[in-house]
Amino acid sequence: MARTFQGDVHDDLRLFAGNANPELAKEIAMTLGVELGRISISPFPNSETRVQIEESIRGTDVYILQPTCQPANDNLMELLLTIDAMKRASVRQITAVIPYFGYGRQDKKSTGREPISAKLVADLLTVAGANRIVAVDLHVAQIQGFFDIPADHLTALTTLADHFKQKQIDNGVIIAPDAGRVKLAEKYSNILGFPLALMHKRRSGEGGREVEAAGVVGDVAGKNPIVVDDEIATGGTVLEQVAVLEEAGAKPAYISVTHPVLAGAAPERLRHPAIREVVVTNTIPVPAEKQASGKIEVLSIAPLLAEAILRIHQHRSVSQVFSAQQLVFPV
Amino acid sequence: MARTFQGDVHDDLRLFAGNANPELAKEIAMTLGVELGRISISPFPNSETRVQIEESIRGTDVYILQPTCQPANDNLMELLLTIDAMKRASVRQITAVIPYFGYGRQDKKSTGREPISAKLVADLLTVAGANRIVAVDLHVAQIQGFFDIPADHLTALTTLADHFKQKQIDNGVIIAPDAGRVKLAEKYSNILGFPLALMHKRRSGEGGREVEAAGVVGDVAGKNPIVVDDEIATGGTVLEQVAVLEEAGAKPAYISVTHPVLAGAAPERLRHPAIREVVVTNTIPVPAEKQASGKIEVLSIAPLLAEAILRIHQHRSVSQVFSAQQLVFPV
Amino acid sequence: MARTFQGDVHDDLRLFAGNANPELAKEIAMTLGVELGRISISPFPNSETRVQIEESIRGTDVYILQPTCQPANDNLMELLLTIDAMKRASVRQITAVIPYFGYGRQDKKSTGREPISAKLVADLLTVAGANRIVAVDLHVAQIQGFFDIPADHLTALTTLADHFKQKQIDNGVIIAPDAGRVKLAEKYSNILGFPLALMHKRRSGEGGREVEAAGVVGDVAGKNPIVVDDEIATGGTVLEQVAVLEEAGAKPAYISVTHPVLAGAAPERLRHPAIREVVVTNTIPVPAEKQASGKIEVLSIAPLLAEAILRIHQHRSVSQVFSAQQLVFPV
Amino acid sequence: MARTFQGDVHDDLRLFAGNANPELAKEIAMTLGVELGRISISPFPNSETRVQIEESIRGTDVYILQPTCQPANDNLMELLLTIDAMKRASVRQITAVIPYFGYGRQDKKSTGREPISAKLVADLLTVAGANRIVAVDLHVAQIQGFFDIPADHLTALTTLADHFKQKQIDNGVIIAPDAGRVKLAEKYSNILGFPLALMHKRRSGEGGREVEAAGVVGDVAGKNPIVVDDEIATGGTVLEQVAVLEEAGAKPAYISVTHPVLAGAAPERLRHPAIREVVVTNTIPVPAEKQASGKIEVLSIAPLLAEAILRIHQHRSVSQVFSAQQLVFPV
Amino acid sequence: MARTFQGDVHDDLRLFAGNANPELAKEIAMTLGVELGRISISPFPNSETRVQIEESIRGTDVYILQPTCQPANDNLMELLLTIDAMKRASVRQITAVIPYFGYGRQDKKSTGREPISAKLVADLLTVAGANRIVAVDLHVAQIQGFFDIPADHLTALTTLADHFKQKQIDNGVIIAPDAGRVKLAEKYSNILGFPLALMHKRRSGEGGREVEAAGVVGDVAGKNPIVVDDEIATGGTVLEQVAVLEEAGAKPAYISVTHPVLAGAAPERLRHPAIREVVVTNTIPVPAEKQASGKIEVLSIAPLLAEAILRIHQHRSVSQVFSAQQLVFPV
Amino acid sequence: MARTFQGDVHDDLRLFAGNANPELAKEIAMTLGVELGRISISPFPNSETRVQIEESIRGTDVYILQPTCQPANDNLMELLLTIDAMKRASVRQITAVIPYFGYGRQDKKSTGREPISAKLVADLLTVAGANRIVAVDLHVAQIQGFFDIPADHLTALTTLADHFKQKQIDNGVIIAPDAGRVKLAEKYSNILGFPLALMHKRRSGEGGREVEAAGVVGDVAGKNPIVVDDEIATGGTVLEQVAVLEEAGAKPAYISVTHPVLAGAAPERLRHPAIREVVVTNTIPVPAEKQASGKIEVLSIAPLLAEAILRIHQHRSVSQVFSAQQLVFPV
Repeated sequence: MARTFQGDVHDDLRLFAGNANPELAKEIAMTLGVELGRISISPFPNSETRVQIEESIRGTDVYILQPTCQPANDNLMELLLTIDAMKRASVRQITAVIPYFGYGRQDKKSTGREPISAKLVADLLTVAGANRIVAVDLHVAQIQGFFDIPADHLTALTTLADHFKQKQIDNGVIIAPDAGRVKLAEKYSNILGFPLALMHKRRSGEGGREVEAAGVVGDVAGKNPIVVDDEIATGGTVLEQVAVLEEAGAKPAYISVTHPVLAGAAPERLRHPAIREVVVTNTIPVPAEKQASGKIEVLSIAPLLAEAILRIHQHRSVSQVFSAQQLVFPV
Repeated sequence: MARTFQGDVHDDLRLFAGNANPELAKEIAMTLGVELGRISISPFPNSETRVQIEESIRGTDVYILQPTCQPANDNLMELLLTIDAMKRASVRQITAVIPYFGYGRQDKKSTGREPISAKLVADLLTVAGANRIVAVDLHVAQIQGFFDIPADHLTALTTLADHFKQKQIDNGVIIAPDAGRVKLAEKYSNILGFPLALMHKRRSGEGGREVEAAGVVGDVAGKNPIVVDDEIATGGTVLEQVAVLEEAGAKPAYISVTHPVLAGAAPERLRHPAIREVVVTNTIPVPAEKQASGKIEVLSIAPLLAEAILRIHQHRSVSQVFSAQQLVFPV
Repeated sequence: MARTFQGDVHDDLRLFAGNANPELAKEIAMTLGVELGRISISPFPNSETRVQIEESIRGTDVYILQPTCQPANDNLMELLLTIDAMKRASVRQITAVIPYFGYGRQDKKSTGREPISAKLVADLLTVAGANRIVAVDLHVAQIQGFFDIPADHLTALTTLADHFKQKQIDNGVIIAPDAGRVKLAEKYSNILGFPLALMHKRRSGEGGREVEAAGVVGDVAGKNPIVVDDEIATGGTVLEQVAVLEEAGAKPAYISVTHPVLAGAAPERLRHPAIREVVVTNTIPVPAEKQASGKIEVLSIAPLLAEAILRIHQHRSVSQVFSAQQLVFPV
Repeated sequence: MARTFQGDVHDDLRLFAGNANPELAKEIAMTLGVELGRISISPFPNSETRVQIEESIRGTDVYILQPTCQPANDNLMELLLTIDAMKRASVRQITAVIPYFGYGRQDKKSTGREPISAKLVADLLTVAGANRIVAVDLHVAQIQGFFDIPADHLTALTTLADHFKQKQIDNGVIIAPDAGRVKLAEKYSNILGFPLALMHKRRSGEGGREVEAAGVVGDVAGKNPIVVDDEIATGGTVLEQVAVLEEAGAKPAYISVTHPVLAGAAPERLRHPAIREVVVTNTIPVPAEKQASGKIEVLSIAPLLAEAILRIHQHRSVSQVFSAQQLVFPV
Repeated sequence: MARTFQGDVHDDLRLFAGNANPELAKEIAMTLGVELGRISISPFPNSETRVQIEESIRGTDVYILQPTCQPANDNLMELLLTIDAMKRASVRQITAVIPYFGYGRQDKKSTGREPISAKLVADLLTVAGANRIVAVDLHVAQIQGFFDIPADHLTALTTLADHFKQKQIDNGVIIAPDAGRVKLAEKYSNILGFPLALMHKRRSGEGGREVEAAGVVGDVAGKNPIVVDDEIATGGTVLEQVAVLEEAGAKPAYISVTHPVLAGAAPERLRHPAIREVVVTNTIPVPAEKQASGKIEVLSIAPLLAEAILRIHQHRSVSQVFSAQQLVFPV
Repeated sequence: MARTFQGDVHDDLRLFAGNANPELAKEIAMTLGVELGRISISPFPNSETRVQIEESIRGTDVYILQPTCQPANDNLMELLLTIDAMKRASVRQITAVIPYFGYGRQDKKSTGREPISAKLVADLLTVAGANRIVAVDLHVAQIQGFFDIPADHLTALTTLADHFKQKQIDNGVIIAPDAGRVKLAEKYSNILGFPLALMHKRRSGEGGREVEAAGVVGDVAGKNPIVVDDEIATGGTVLEQVAVLEEAGAKPAYISVTHPVLAGAAPERLRHPAIREVVVTNTIPVPAEKQASGKIEVLSIAPLLAEAILRIHQHRSVSQVFSAQQLVFPV
């Protein structure tokens, strides 16, 4: 299945991987028909990160694959230090391939005196020396604008939606789990031809200080819900959502998300009978023990990333390869 | 009604206005008990903008009020040139007060090879020399993160919602006119205690290339809809929305938006009988002739901006004054 | 006449045009033997500028032709937004070709508390992402120094002077219309072999507050004056000048300027009998109705710009092509 | 013992602490007679760091105390995010007080293709928004030059040397454990009046590829050695050093270092009988269990930091307070 | 004569001087009623410049007076190193007072492949840490725009013109010695009420490659010429000019320039009988031996600079004090 | 002896030289088989530096060789102005080859209120437009970190050590003349197999205010000392050192340093009989008259620099060529 592009690849493309998702990097390298670059990244005894690139990279175009998933700060520092080492080694251009862009949810000040962490991370990457960013399903598309360097924003939507198309689900309904995901739900709705419903939290009490259980806007009774989101963190919110859906008469839910953060007790929570299947990609590695429930289906994002890297390297359009979808779901 | 703060204001606060909304500037100045700074901004015969500040401002804290509404490019250049003149005149600090932040809707690349205009504008303001930004109801809150300088993001939501509270509407329903406004609709819903409905466009044909008429998710029949949005541009979309609502059995709609862009034939379109009232603020001036329909109610944002400027100048919390609401509607 | 360079042009040269002077862009493209790049630039209904580049440009060297003439702010924003879109589309290098550099006359603070608009514009272009500038007859050559990116400064002087050589004028005199143009007049004087005269405003009254009519230094009686300048704006000053020349016994004047700004009533004013001919270039488009007087002769700057673009692209000297002149008139 | 400066402190000084060393922060606050600022810093379930400043800080001078010790990346990100939040909250000036500057040992490229991590960290702090740095005993003084913002570089040398003066040790010898610490050893030597000896690694084999055991240059037999260094990491090197000293006839050694990194098995290793006492400061917290050996003496650096913060805040000389020593040991 | 402002000056104004013009600095300090700051600037034996500021300056507003006259590179490096030291010493604001701005004549590329030295110097000053510039009679006013920091541009014109007013010269004529000085000559002409004449070089031969002797445009026979310029360098050009004037029947000339560069044999050359008097200011020191001819009159610029520094420090208008003139001679 | 690489060198490599060390540049050019680029650098009569590049360099990779040795400020300004001219001439990349990096000893604040001159110089080079730095034996390796652009740091150690290997010295001892050079001495010690001794200054009196004569740590009696350092400035310190060594019973000393600064009376001082030979490289030119003593042996650094430039230009590893040594002496 893994198409290889060996003949096409210029000598000066180099792909490196940090420690966050080496399996995905290997899969991309195999698809591209290149060897992963030799690099050593490990902690010093004092917990600082040590980076040593072990082959000459002068004048080459380097791609460093590193999702900034858990442990977020260590993975981010690995990425920043590697970029600094590359810059000082006189490479031609550094592309940071960040399938999961950590700190993406802190994309604005929601109250006074907070950081805008996603912008800070963008600034850190830029000052370290990155020349371009490739990301997949940013929490909000506006994060592209946090950068002044080019950012290629890919989507796993077709990968995920294709999976559901093949399942030939009857009587489905797309569930936007909160206000921020309605646009995403619309895209699924248009691809799969299912109607849309929206969950939202209602508040009560003086000044709306108390959050009531979430409600559903739209019709879900007797239907097969597909809850769509960009990531699953602890799974706690998912459990609340499927409970509400169940109560509203829906059948057990499919969950479709790009990024399997799966923090803490998430794997256990997802065993809940109101959940039929959880479909994710491998932007973040899902270790075998987290898949134990048997309900988690991991689709590979490697072909998408390999194609994008190749097109970037060959100066061909990246948006073009996704053009059919673009008309429908501009990212 | 206009509270004045004369005693409180330091000598070194100076408020200037561009040509975009001088009436609002005067109202704010009156509320603050200060004189508007003397400045001359006018076009040269060759269409370039000429700026001359006509009083000494060395060492002062200057605030320049200028929404970048229509004509957007002229108003933006007025603002940039004035900031440049202020910077070169050795002021202490420049705060750009931009009640309507033009180009805010171009906040991401929706296809390949587009500008992210809102980020460009943020960079232009920064390079010109602005030290802080004050804005009202940005199209998306993430625009704050387009700046590395402090940005105080205010909301007209309470001003608008209070208006509807006083009307004591029965059997209302808050309408999110598209996916991007569901969060805003939730906030109205929580303040006014009305349920929520969502409009969204459905597509059909191969690849979803054709847009069908919008549909409604949620129950609106027999209800008084309040369609909430950040701005009305041409009014064309509003007409489609109220038509759909009417068809779904709703009563004539209230429209509640912060920014009355009202481009082209918008004033005529808003005369449509399916629209009961259009409530806006004066972030953008609404000339008398545009209000001719009698349906447009303009609420003043001046007290909010005056309070914010005063608090900024006195180093008091800006988020605090909006704290009651903050719990309910983080901006 | 249009030499084409088809064989020479690399595949990765792309020429785009904004809306300010599409005819000139087409002429340059034809001379270079390339197609103009596909781009759509148009106003949104709310007056903001919308830019969409409609072909892949990754890894190419892009040239965007856009004089920032009237409407200056719209043309400038078109340019800035296009540069932003190009930068984000991963081009290799962006050259802004600006035949007429608007805001060039505001090149210093002439009193306190003014902007230095030309420097602001230079900073805006740089922050947007331009990598190089090409300009023609900047109001002052020092504007090159407002940039830290390379700036190729071309001159239309030979184009204009050749025109007068061919006319074989007898008994000419070169008129510097004010102190700032004496250097330019010297260059014409040296090429055409005519003597020089200088017009200047005299002041009287306490502190020189009143401007008397301009006087002439040098001998003009019975001669054919050629008034040289970089631009004609409203034509008002030109009328005063030819009146003074007439009074001093000169014959009707030739006017030779690079940039036909021709704001307001300029075309009508230039019909004055004391003006024999007005020679300009097409850095700024001169619509047919402005040429109605029949006195305006428009020379094309396209060969000069095409040659410069080609040399830049092929890494050949730009100053060399103008070397014969350089000895005489360093720009 | 804790002098307080209550009367002196301006209202607009605010001291905040990250999670790296809250006890030190409390001690400094008590000495200064101020309350620690209210801030909440904690991990999200997905391991990202959440920062919320819980009091208004507009227009104030904020000091954030955070050594970037173990866990280095988490502590660094806490610091960067807090600085970002402060910058966006319109403070007047941000001083990052970093008693232990992590990544300081990676201060140059020792082979090709390495990061210069200490410079990267300096750049990250600057881009996040820090306006000034205070540090104690940087690994090399040149790290000051990695910053373009002011850096106040303090030393714990007098604190440590005073401790040894009071012990009235006879027949001491100062041991520089490697070439990089000879300057430090000279300073101790001058204060305490003891001679100097130097340890260094000798190499053998072809090209010096094998490291022999370290040797001693200078006379140590029968003497009381004081091994001086900036930090103890794993203690492994210290064990080798005291073994060599023992073999060379020295008595059990004192160890004097500023920063008790004490990674891994360090506390156990330091129980070795050839070590008499380990003197450190509290730039990094030493939890009770690490002190179990009873040999570790922790001196407080709080008075030094409090005095420096106060002087910075009152615009008094920081170098002056250390002037007596300065003549002897420029830092 | 020296007004002192002792009562007015804030404690936090500090005036320092480099080695370029200590006498002028002392005169300014005396006028301001302040002590010159203690600083030691001297060469190391290896020719590098050593700077040590010998008093605490934290939190103060520092002014450093240093014209970058001969030896230009040493004086410039003194200035840059002093600014760096000040920045790192946590001052509030650094104003570089540069009465003579060296490298000002290299303000554009006159042929290909030259530096724009004046812009480079502006960038060096900015990166070193200057916050504001004060200069006198820049070679071209556009150099202000080479800075993005505020630049206060003063003129010695009134100082010089007053001198000539008092002389009550009959039948004068103002001579612009080349095209670049016609604007300056116009200003003198307006103040003193004398007519204007222009000298310019004529070229001949093929392509104008040969320079003929300069000619005069305007009437000078029997008149008392005042040749005005910004600086005298070697005096060689001045000699040519007065020879031409003499030949044209003019009487011996007055020379009026701001900056007495007086390089090489200039003092001897100025003894020429066709020169009646050379009037300069002390922006650059004129050692006694250079004044030996007895023809050089040095006017002090200290009152002007002291007034400007005081106004800057007190946040009063700088342009205002020169307003009467401004109407006549915008600088 | 001069290997030439003619076949290898791309057309677009251009090597230029300032006035600091043209002989070294010629030697490098000859080794590389290229012509030195045509450039004119000379002082104007007013002492400012004039730079004119006399051949087209668009699109090329330019290398400018210029040690910033005496006269340091003139040589530095030559370098900065040349870089500015290159940048504005649209070159592809600028590499500043600085065999001796002046101001390198001012690498930290040793007391309060000093510049960090080496960092300032790094910032000046960067703002002027340098894209990469090549240096030899920086005073401290941390200066690499003062740059954010790539810096290739070469060492003359093998060149110098090879010289001593060939001399087959018996019973040698490597002398570190102060604490800062112990690391360097260790490297010599490992290559040549000689033991190490350390000289250091001892202080006495209250607070160590008085410096006693330097002492020696380690055994030197009857041995042949090789004093190693990065540079000799005035030779004064060297004289003190050899006197102490002589007194301690050592034989006459060899001196081995990279950079022959040789300021003032250094050449005479080095004639002292306690000095056997002074071995230096030609990073700085040593004019014949300075070599008069006959004791100074100058080794050429040209092969090292030529090899490095070639490898940089061909995108081959620079660290690799020095790899054997690297294991032993990381630079």
